[in-house]
Amino acid sequence: MPYVNIRVTREGVSAAQKARLIAGVTDLLAATLGKNPATTVVVIDEVDPDNWGIGGLPVADVRAGQGKDVR
Amino acid sequence: MPYVNIRVTREGVSAAQKARLIAGVTDLLAATLGKNPATTVVVIDEVDPDNWGIGGLPVADVRAGQGKDVR
Amino acid sequence: MPYVNIRVTREGVSAAQKARLIAGVTDLLAATLGKNPATTVVVIDEVDPDNWGIGGLPVADVRAGQGKDVR
Amino acid sequence: MPYVNIRVTREGVSAAQKARLIAGVTDLLAATLGKNPATTVVVIDEVDPDNWGIGGLPVADVRAGQGKDVR
Amino acid sequence: MPYVNIRVTREGVSAAQKARLIAGVTDLLAATLGKNPATTVVVIDEVDPDNWGIGGLPVADVRAGQGKDVR
Amino acid sequence: MPYVNIRVTREGVSAAQKARLIAGVTDLLAATLGKNPATTVVVIDEVDPDNWGIGGLPVADVRAGQGKDVR
Repeated sequence: MPYVNIRVTREGVSAAQKARLIAGVTDLLAATLGKNPATTVVVIDEVDPDNWGIGGLPVADVRAGQGKDVR
Repeated sequence: MPYVNIRVTREGVSAAQKARLIAGVTDLLAATLGKNPATTVVVIDEVDPDNWGIGGLPVADVRAGQGKDVR
Repeated sequence: MPYVNIRVTREGVSAAQKARLIAGVTDLLAATLGKNPATTVVVIDEVDPDNWGIGGLPVADVRAGQGKDVR
Repeated sequence: MPYVNIRVTREGVSAAQKARLIAGVTDLLAATLGKNPATTVVVIDEVDPDNWGIGGLPVADVRAGQGKDVR
Repeated sequence: MPYVNIRVTREGVSAAQKARLIAGVTDLLAATLGKNPATTVVVIDEVDPDNWGIGGLPVADVRAGQGKDVR
Repeated sequence: MPYVNIRVTREGVSAAQKARLIAGVTDLLAATLGKNPATTVVVIDEVDPDNWGIGGLPVADVRAGQGKDVR
């Protein structure tokens, strides 16, 4: 019955990676809190790097300006 | 003044259906709690079936693998 | 399988009112989009009036200062 | 370390405007609460006008039907 | 840099269990997507059973009325 | 009409500080995007340090164990 929302920057996350995130979080909630996997909902939001800010700057700018690969 | 967020899988929800959801939720909050419709905000998020997990699997896989029409 | 989050100011919403909101939203999603009620999740968040802003002011201040009953 | 989510209707918000929102919110949290800008996360969601309801109607309909420029 | 929000019903989740959820999700994102643990944020919301609906009913009622231990 | 959600750890944020956050975000959206302050909603969530994770650890543990004042 838990609801989990994972938000990451959009950068080519594959369907297989998404499936691994969904399985991993669902297992973790079952193992840690005894939550029922059948009703555990996981929603992944992929956000454009222009729309994600860290340190007061859009991720797109941090990467371009500083050569930093913030993840 | 309430804020309501409806999250569903993306699968051809029409503009008319969205309008019905928005009207329905706004009416419900006015009728149940006396909330002012003029400032009631409803936001609908449509999520790709790859990004929505239930039962430890992406919805896309549940439908493909099991012929189940999870909604 | 939908997830709905209703956010309202905290002001004595009764358990019966919450039950009506949950039933109403679940019915609406079944009637409008054919969603399965068994896996429809509705979460109600009640927020202190100090923590809810509208028009640039906390709701607590709008009510106190202007005698307006913003809902 | 704060997390801020800004949701607006999608209507040509430029990268420069997004950068200004991210910088502004990050500065505000540092100035008001002493929050560390380096770990302040800001995520902007742009929502289609069909999917955003106010006053019981989708924004797209309010604008079309009433000539009102709701923002 | 990811942001993860875990929402569960409030029912005596211990500090140790919360720590395990936080560590588990952070590890999963590092292993699956190469995300930096130092900037991965995980927020756990505990929600009263009156405020959580499933199947059109508050969890509190499902448990009381049906002897079902929905989790 | 925008909706903004600010999430911070709960640690004695005063009503005056909350009012400053609400005013500041509302002004920023009006100045940057021309958004109408009258319908701008800002919701502040205060989260217990046990429930907020950063770097794979609850904030409560980071502070206790490392003498670090993560904010």
